[in-house]
Amino acid sequence: MNLDAIPQGVVAGSIPLFAGHPARELLPINGLKPVIQAAWRAGGVARFLNYGDEQGNPQLIDFLVERLNHRENLGISRDNLMIIGGSTGGVDMATKRLTAPGDVVLADAPSYRDALHIFRDQGLEIRAAPIDEAGIVLADLKRALRQLAAKGKAPRFYYVVPNFQNPSGITMSRERRLAVIELSRQYGFVILEDDVYSDLRYEGAAPPSFYDLAGGERVLRLGTFSKTLAPGLRIGWLIASAERIASFVESGMLRMGGGANPFSAAIVADFCRSGAWEAHARWLRGQYERRRDLALAALQSSMPADVEWTRPAGGYFIWLRLPASIHVDDLEARAQERGLYFASGRGFFVDPDEGARHLRLSFSYVPLPDLQAGIQTLGALIAGMASGG
Amino acid sequence: MNLDAIPQGVVAGSIPLFAGHPARELLPINGLKPVIQAAWRAGGVARFLNYGDEQGNPQLIDFLVERLNHRENLGISRDNLMIIGGSTGGVDMATKRLTAPGDVVLADAPSYRDALHIFRDQGLEIRAAPIDEAGIVLADLKRALRQLAAKGKAPRFYYVVPNFQNPSGITMSRERRLAVIELSRQYGFVILEDDVYSDLRYEGAAPPSFYDLAGGERVLRLGTFSKTLAPGLRIGWLIASAERIASFVESGMLRMGGGANPFSAAIVADFCRSGAWEAHARWLRGQYERRRDLALAALQSSMPADVEWTRPAGGYFIWLRLPASIHVDDLEARAQERGLYFASGRGFFVDPDEGARHLRLSFSYVPLPDLQAGIQTLGALIAGMASGG
Repeated sequence: MNLDAIPQGVVAGSIPLFAGHPARELLPINGLKPVIQAAWRAGGVARFLNYGDEQGNPQLIDFLVERLNHRENLGISRDNLMIIGGSTGGVDMATKRLTAPGDVVLADAPSYRDALHIFRDQGLEIRAAPIDEAGIVLADLKRALRQLAAKGKAPRFYYVVPNFQNPSGITMSRERRLAVIELSRQYGFVILEDDVYSDLRYEGAAPPSFYDLAGGERVLRLGTFSKTLAPGLRIGWLIASAERIASFVESGMLRMGGGANPFSAAIVADFCRSGAWEAHARWLRGQYERRRDLALAALQSSMPADVEWTRPAGGYFIWLRLPASIHVDDLEARAQERGLYFASGRGFFVDPDEGARHLRLSFSYVPLPDLQAGIQTLGALIAGMASGG
Repeated sequence: MNLDAIPQGVVAGSIPLFAGHPARELLPINGLKPVIQAAWRAGGVARFLNYGDEQGNPQLIDFLVERLNHRENLGISRDNLMIIGGSTGGVDMATKRLTAPGDVVLADAPSYRDALHIFRDQGLEIRAAPIDEAGIVLADLKRALRQLAAKGKAPRFYYVVPNFQNPSGITMSRERRLAVIELSRQYGFVILEDDVYSDLRYEGAAPPSFYDLAGGERVLRLGTFSKTLAPGLRIGWLIASAERIASFVESGMLRMGGGANPFSAAIVADFCRSGAWEAHARWLRGQYERRRDLALAALQSSMPADVEWTRPAGGYFIWLRLPASIHVDDLEARAQERGLYFASGRGFFVDPDEGARHLRLSFSYVPLPDLQAGIQTLGALIAGMASGG
């Protein structure tokens, strides 16, 4: 969705706190320009205007393999990584290749709305287990697995945003990850690790990825440049076993289309190899950390005592729980009258009613004054509704 | 597949007549540069570096709607068109959204290899009917439909490249198109019209599209910039009923990814709106026509009398039939020893053995001297084999 148009279109001066978009002013517009110019000067353009390798831009593959091995001591080779059309391209491919309509997949409750939408488009049955501050609740996950097994059903994969989850901002603990991996072995499902936000950590240390903890077995790990560079380029990557990568690369879609977005992948490759991406991501972390801190401070000063919210160590999102007396639909209607938009909790659950007391705030997109003003408005609305107004 | 690397890598001086790629030297490298620079100067970059509209770049949609209505008197509105990631993106989306594993789809025999690959990836059963110089043979198509109906099966769609078909170069006649549309109504299948090459017509007039002849009913028509601009940009379009477009636009994949490739779509939009695309396509037609003429002349002068080939009025491909005594595998092995690569007929049939006497030559990719030399070598090889050499 193009949000640059929508807010102004709906209500002048509106505040879109629902958007999981990078802020316009944080896109590296000036940084990309010289990279593109240099590619033209160097004559590299002919290379990336034609069909590309099915596995994706070779220079970008090499860069990512080296970076991941250096930062995480991951020990992958270029056979373990392919370029995809954003993390979306990976979720779509995994869904197509690993499932058939009627199959079951596992997810968190709440989970990322648009991924649930992709699963529904493919006619999949989604079983979700609740999360707490450390990630998926194991007792609930085990119960779901037992119930499915009793019906002779085996889930195909578990979809998870492990770090700064969308929508909750929660990071799953190392212990939970290990336990889920154990269950994945026991029940034979794949873990689809949609690691969108790990490069936007503002404090603390990251637990090892599912891919790392599982020794690369039965895990598909997705990464993306959408949050640390620019979503419009549509470039991400997939890490998996060499066999899995080879099978994906052999797909008709990649044969026909010639690898993920050769033109923008080459631009991203050059941007990364110049060192500009690391520098930009570092700067971004500082910018988003300020936004997060401001949002948390505004929540602290604006919200009535019976509102609860998460304190994410990275990413884009804060997840709110409303007082029992307030339904999110009512709050949403009143907020929109004032030009304030948030993501209703209802979209993030298989059963929308489970989200009736929740909402997601995104601190990534709006300018800081709007972020503060939006949260203040929201606090006043909730306080008014809680007091029967 | 990146062919700039392969030929040199396999055999120095090799001639890749198998590649359905635009020639490197025919890519509008210098034409694209000022378009991109202007976008940066005008500040349009922020707009297309972020997530875009699910339906695709609005300016490009408007341009295409106006062009198609002007050229073909098509009478579509912007509700009938969406931007996709090349025609591949459309085949992939249609396959995902219109079929489930085990479903039947119809195709020509021969048909485009990579599309068959996509259908197989999705677990579809492919029923193909032979084509002659006017397209699919109706008696065979009707027989296939009756046989399927007798088994209680209804095909989901008929996949067709209507103009300058890949691999045969054949254009389906108006009468055949009308008859297929009639059958599509009778049996309830969709026509997936992959109209990749219609902007590369070198002579004669085009029959109306399936979409046009069917009044837009039950037809998905795909177009692409891959052959007339640059495949690496991954931009095409889909024309369909407003209901169908709305349902595709509402998909989880487009919600998550934000429309097809916003960055390159914006570049394509600006290139088109400046008039550069029409001018480039016109120039391209002249260039490819020369290549086709040279290829046909070389075939005429090099091939033994019992070799037959098509004479395409556009597109990239010529389809050869070998003498009964020659198996394409033997010819392929001998050709590759001499650094000559073509597309074996076997890949274009559901039953590869049907293609054992056929091969596809592409005249789009290699320089003219190589095209001539390659066909001469091929002729000599066939003559040698036919005489028992």
